[in-house]
Amino acid sequence: MKKTYLLTPGPTPVPETISSIFARPLIHHRTPGFQKLFEEVRAGLKYVFQTKQEVLTLLCSGTGGMDAAVSNLFSPGDEIISINGGKFGARWAKIASAYGIICHEIKVAPGASVEASEVSDFVAKHPSAKAICFQASETSTGSCMPTEEIVEVARRANLLSVCDAITACGVFDLPMDEWGIDVMITGSQKAMMIPPGLAFIALSDRAWKANETAKAPRFYFDLAREKKSQLKNQTAWTPGTSLIQGLHEALKMIQEEGLQNVFKRHERLAQATRAAVQALGLEILATKRPSSAVTSVKVPSQIADGKLIPRTMRDSYGVTIAGGQDELEGKIFRLSHFGYCGIFDITTGISCLEMTLHDLGYPVQFGKGVGAALASYKKTS
Amino acid sequence: MKKTYLLTPGPTPVPETISSIFARPLIHHRTPGFQKLFEEVRAGLKYVFQTKQEVLTLLCSGTGGMDAAVSNLFSPGDEIISINGGKFGARWAKIASAYGIICHEIKVAPGASVEASEVSDFVAKHPSAKAICFQASETSTGSCMPTEEIVEVARRANLLSVCDAITACGVFDLPMDEWGIDVMITGSQKAMMIPPGLAFIALSDRAWKANETAKAPRFYFDLAREKKSQLKNQTAWTPGTSLIQGLHEALKMIQEEGLQNVFKRHERLAQATRAAVQALGLEILATKRPSSAVTSVKVPSQIADGKLIPRTMRDSYGVTIAGGQDELEGKIFRLSHFGYCGIFDITTGISCLEMTLHDLGYPVQFGKGVGAALASYKKTS
Repeated sequence: MKKTYLLTPGPTPVPETISSIFARPLIHHRTPGFQKLFEEVRAGLKYVFQTKQEVLTLLCSGTGGMDAAVSNLFSPGDEIISINGGKFGARWAKIASAYGIICHEIKVAPGASVEASEVSDFVAKHPSAKAICFQASETSTGSCMPTEEIVEVARRANLLSVCDAITACGVFDLPMDEWGIDVMITGSQKAMMIPPGLAFIALSDRAWKANETAKAPRFYFDLAREKKSQLKNQTAWTPGTSLIQGLHEALKMIQEEGLQNVFKRHERLAQATRAAVQALGLEILATKRPSSAVTSVKVPSQIADGKLIPRTMRDSYGVTIAGGQDELEGKIFRLSHFGYCGIFDITTGISCLEMTLHDLGYPVQFGKGVGAALASYKKTS
Repeated sequence: MKKTYLLTPGPTPVPETISSIFARPLIHHRTPGFQKLFEEVRAGLKYVFQTKQEVLTLLCSGTGGMDAAVSNLFSPGDEIISINGGKFGARWAKIASAYGIICHEIKVAPGASVEASEVSDFVAKHPSAKAICFQASETSTGSCMPTEEIVEVARRANLLSVCDAITACGVFDLPMDEWGIDVMITGSQKAMMIPPGLAFIALSDRAWKANETAKAPRFYFDLAREKKSQLKNQTAWTPGTSLIQGLHEALKMIQEEGLQNVFKRHERLAQATRAAVQALGLEILATKRPSSAVTSVKVPSQIADGKLIPRTMRDSYGVTIAGGQDELEGKIFRLSHFGYCGIFDITTGISCLEMTLHDLGYPVQFGKGVGAALASYKKTS
């Protein structure tokens, strides 16, 4: 028997009290029972998004939500600006290109962040741009972008702000309405703590206005049609009923803990994780604005093949973490600390990391990382 | 306590042995464990589709699969032919229109079917058309279209045949490769017996060739990209892992029963259902080519508000069936008989119908419908 643990930045672990919901008999989606459930889900999503706008539930992955944002806001030939700080930041230009939209990229080094002044200067050079698309938290590097400042730059230049908050919404504070974020997107297998399958997207009044004239083609992802249905507690197409049943319970858990308490918990766990890896002599990739969703750690020079770290953790010890992706493959590994996550997930991950580093020939004083995590955790209580 | 029963043509009931899989801990999708599971799923899907082609698993509803078919095969300005025999047949023109594709519709009266000669004549009048899009089984009316003949007409005119088999694939015989169907689509909550969330689509060599030059924009639904990933037991975007875990077991069940036996079971249950409602003096909507997925029954003139039939069945007796949709609302009700379905689901549905008809003032001799179902069932054994 090998006990297994999931410490990846999506899918995140599903709470035991929610898992069992997915084993319940299906409910049909064209029934008053579903409508009542969905009405409560809609209210819960607004709470997590901190918005009065309708938060639309789509049946797709987070990438589907990003695709929907682009195809519902722009027209072929339009120009947009994207902030590309990693694998997900790079995706905006790919989606735009598919729809004949011109994307001007602000390239950000892996793990770095962007400053409002850089964005502002870039915007000045691209006066025809209609929007700034960015990641609140770039999952591939563990670095945050300064959402509030980016949104402010966008608003002053009369651009739409399109925020991929897939590992940010419900992770740390992103008050959509207060900050004036025009589009915010997340996915079910992140802070919502349920399996992959749903994406969520909310649009500001300005974004809905842009939607009226946007000519990029869309059918499955027609957000105006979805909004019309979802206001009536229905969906345009068959919804992911079983996932929505679990989501209903997950949203209750978030509401019971309180959103600000959820954010504090994530921040404490992130700090404990950073303290632990630093105590082990490892370097964090994103030092400027580290995300409270995920910590990316550089593979130390003593370990030639960095891919062996996540592989050993999984195959020898049963702990699944994430490695680096694309050009960061083998160069970093990523420890997640959000969603259904507590201090003992951190100590499990760090304990496993200590043994793994030892196995791979990196000198480790056992307990040093775990001790630093615990000390940080107590200090921030 | 009121026991509840789901007798709708999607979602269909999930087998008890599969339900519990959805309560299992999540597996991460970028792991050898997922890849092994997905490799077996891919083989199982080919078995059900009766094809050597790759059957792509998409994270969306069946409508997403239809959208993917259109956006991956055609270019703005292209012409296609669709067979519109109901709510789902009407969807082809709507999707085409979203992508700037011209759709010529063969209108078929609700419950009627189409003849190969009509299709052939229509094709002759539209020599620029590139494809015929149709439903193998129109779920909204319970009527089948003659797939083999339509595909033959398409092939002779060098058109692609695009078959929405959402309530057909795995329900009755549709040998994709043998008949030369160019595109076949289905969804997870139908004959696959799992919750909604996945669509499946397979393309013939001819369809893949059309894909190479098709210019309609697509990103999330880029099938060429999906194929490249899925051949490596991965997916382009985050997959619906929990649903795929359940699908793995459902496909095993179908393989153990044997596809031809599954088809025979559905046909027997369909015959028993038709015998039952006719014994109760009710009329079937689709008499020409009734589907073995679902039987649509006309609301008798003695019942003024036809919507009361499904409502009473559900609210008084706990049995959820489907009513009519759009222009058929209140005029028909629909009894499903495929997926995880046996004779006692039929007797349950008919018993409930008998009591409901009685409650609504329609004269019923209790047991007459059930008796006819049983007699039919024994006769066809």
